[in-house]
Amino acid sequence: MEMSSKLLERAVAEISQLPGIGKRTALRLMLHLLKQPEEQTRQLAEALHKMRTDIQFCNRCHNIADSGLCQICANTSRDTSIICVVEDIRDVMAIENTSLFKGVYHVLGGKISPIDGVGPSQLNIPTLVEKVKAGGVKELIFALSSTMEGDTTNFYIYRQIKEYGITTSAIARGIAVGDELEFADEVTLGRSIIHRVPFEISMKNM
Amino acid sequence: MEMSSKLLERAVAEISQLPGIGKRTALRLMLHLLKQPEEQTRQLAEALHKMRTDIQFCNRCHNIADSGLCQICANTSRDTSIICVVEDIRDVMAIENTSLFKGVYHVLGGKISPIDGVGPSQLNIPTLVEKVKAGGVKELIFALSSTMEGDTTNFYIYRQIKEYGITTSAIARGIAVGDELEFADEVTLGRSIIHRVPFEISMKNM
Repeated sequence: MEMSSKLLERAVAEISQLPGIGKRTALRLMLHLLKQPEEQTRQLAEALHKMRTDIQFCNRCHNIADSGLCQICANTSRDTSIICVVEDIRDVMAIENTSLFKGVYHVLGGKISPIDGVGPSQLNIPTLVEKVKAGGVKELIFALSSTMEGDTTNFYIYRQIKEYGITTSAIARGIAVGDELEFADEVTLGRSIIHRVPFEISMKNM
Repeated sequence: MEMSSKLLERAVAEISQLPGIGKRTALRLMLHLLKQPEEQTRQLAEALHKMRTDIQFCNRCHNIADSGLCQICANTSRDTSIICVVEDIRDVMAIENTSLFKGVYHVLGGKISPIDGVGPSQLNIPTLVEKVKAGGVKELIFALSSTMEGDTTNFYIYRQIKEYGITTSAIARGIAVGDELEFADEVTLGRSIIHRVPFEISMKNM
């Protein structure tokens, strides 16, 4: 695409490096910014730069944090004996939104995926094993996505911590609340029957 | 959405002000940036800021430019007697990509749209009328989109310049090259028959 401005060309090239943003979308976004007050672009640029340079990761659970500990780990009313193992920060936010989990998290930063070149050493697994080893942890809840990579990662961690004899669990898989059975895939429907829950328990938290 | 970092929250809020980018997409983009080297975010922020503050608009055709005149107006081999009237900068790029137009452009910066609060005074119409009035212009090609607003804008300009007796034309509407007739809408197909072109001429530029 031939543009009559090198400045625009460079901005489009930079923003189209983001995932899911192609050259056309990038151009549309830039032309939008050009129509807005200069102040908006200044604030956007500053927020991006500040976020990238100043953000920290919680040195206990690897969640994002503005200082050494994230808000969840810093909260003394959370139960540190139950750790929910998640793939990334978005999963923490999703579970926090339910307001039903009172334990703490451990963010792996991805899952084992040889195809993408991600091995166990690139993930925050050693610090998790350390925590379990140090004692005080009663239960580990695996909340990774149920893909081949997620299952592999769960199993890899499970093998490293099973000698410490703590409880391990995985989040329930089944038909989403409000979904029609006829549109569910067979694997999910099958699991929802095998892992059925006593009716009195299933009525809780409704 | 509860995030454990104010810095992230602010960056997400800023980027989700862009059109077509919601909070979820913004968060995905920011988490991507956090995984990339700091240098990438620094360059992105700088490119955005520099583009917005340093970019100029061609003082002849209102296209974007890095200095007083855009590359097209500065090119002495272009025919300044034929002006193609377009809505925005993207249309200039699209027509330039065809390499078939040797005249110059006039970027209106939008089209008359009372619903969106855009009247003739918000558009670059007076400078266009000035150009025609000053003489030296032989033809005006209207290349706005064929919507109610586009037609209104064309007609508004046409009324202002018709007294100067120059040629006016509009780009051809018809079936796109390579398209099947059976899938074309009736209006387009109808126009393509009414505005049919002598066969020898239609074979040119193939």
